[in-house]
Amino acid sequence: MARVSPEHLEARRRQIVDGARRCFLRNGFHATSMQDVLKESGLSAGAVYRYFRSKEEIIAAVAAEALETIRTSFDRVVAAEVPPSPDELFTEVFGRLQESIGAGEDPRELPRLLVQVWSEGLRNAELAETMTEAYGHLSAQWARLVGEYQARGWVDPEADTLHVARILVGAVQGYFVQQALWGGITPEEFAKGLRALVSMSVPDERRKSR
Amino acid sequence: MARVSPEHLEARRRQIVDGARRCFLRNGFHATSMQDVLKESGLSAGAVYRYFRSKEEIIAAVAAEALETIRTSFDRVVAAEVPPSPDELFTEVFGRLQESIGAGEDPRELPRLLVQVWSEGLRNAELAETMTEAYGHLSAQWARLVGEYQARGWVDPEADTLHVARILVGAVQGYFVQQALWGGITPEEFAKGLRALVSMSVPDERRKSR
Repeated sequence: MARVSPEHLEARRRQIVDGARRCFLRNGFHATSMQDVLKESGLSAGAVYRYFRSKEEIIAAVAAEALETIRTSFDRVVAAEVPPSPDELFTEVFGRLQESIGAGEDPRELPRLLVQVWSEGLRNAELAETMTEAYGHLSAQWARLVGEYQARGWVDPEADTLHVARILVGAVQGYFVQQALWGGITPEEFAKGLRALVSMSVPDERRKSR
Repeated sequence: MARVSPEHLEARRRQIVDGARRCFLRNGFHATSMQDVLKESGLSAGAVYRYFRSKEEIIAAVAAEALETIRTSFDRVVAAEVPPSPDELFTEVFGRLQESIGAGEDPRELPRLLVQVWSEGLRNAELAETMTEAYGHLSAQWARLVGEYQARGWVDPEADTLHVARILVGAVQGYFVQQALWGGITPEEFAKGLRALVSMSVPDERRKSR
């Protein structure tokens, strides 16, 4: 054990996680067995069990990595000094996401994985916790940004920043659902739609008359 | 067979679908067996197999019913002569959804079922088709409404109605994800957030300067 370098350990772990992700994308969490993961990663059971005690632990690792990818892309964009508008933010985050996924990879992989993670999280407490943490972080970041919009007079100062944040997080979740199931929508098209939507102007008298 | 009334057949079918839905909500599609469905619905294997040949067929029936509930609530609201604004539409659709679900029932049931249906739809072609049909219908209805917004000068006339529609459908899908996983958000709060978001005003010069 002492002679095994950290780099070697990490490379092995990577090999398992990547192999498992391919299996999950192909057949889903439930129809994938540990045997499938061994075969796909080209490692022995002994090697795999040294890193992960169960399929559930591998699912948790794959999910955590997917959520971390989104978080990293998001945090970099949000750090800009002048707050980006929602559609600009969306375009930049998805640009970074695509870079981090790699040019040759299918951009629908991450959405397809996420939809499975949500479903699995309904009954897997550990996974639910990982998601809750990621969702809390994203919502808080968005809420801070909405606060900056309010300070600049872009958003009604009476609005609850967290309520607005939830719609924006929701729009991104909806984008993932649509990409996972139907594809055929580019981040640019989604951003354009968002831009038109956030600049709607419903006359106030129209609202009061109802 | 000839003596069995259509009402009796429908009541039996109802009993199976309701029992299966309870099982699916509790344990998910994969961990639910036909045996569980028989036990929950209180019927014999012979009775159940007369209506459904497999668990997959029952999943399809439960999913179709969930999607139909949303569609019906949506279609009634959209039919109004003066187009409702997105937040008004949202409030009314969710009010109707809650009515159709019934007062005593958990409002998170439908969202939790939908998240599972999306995930299952990634690999189940029949389910995918049902969802595609429902999604196409909702998107087209929203796009028509966005066209009416444009005619009234509420939305940029240059915007692609389908792109805007996708954000609105996405926001609702995101609402379901959040309700399913975390709850704790009322339709009213979501509508308020949506209202603040759609009335944002990002100055044009700010956009051009980037």
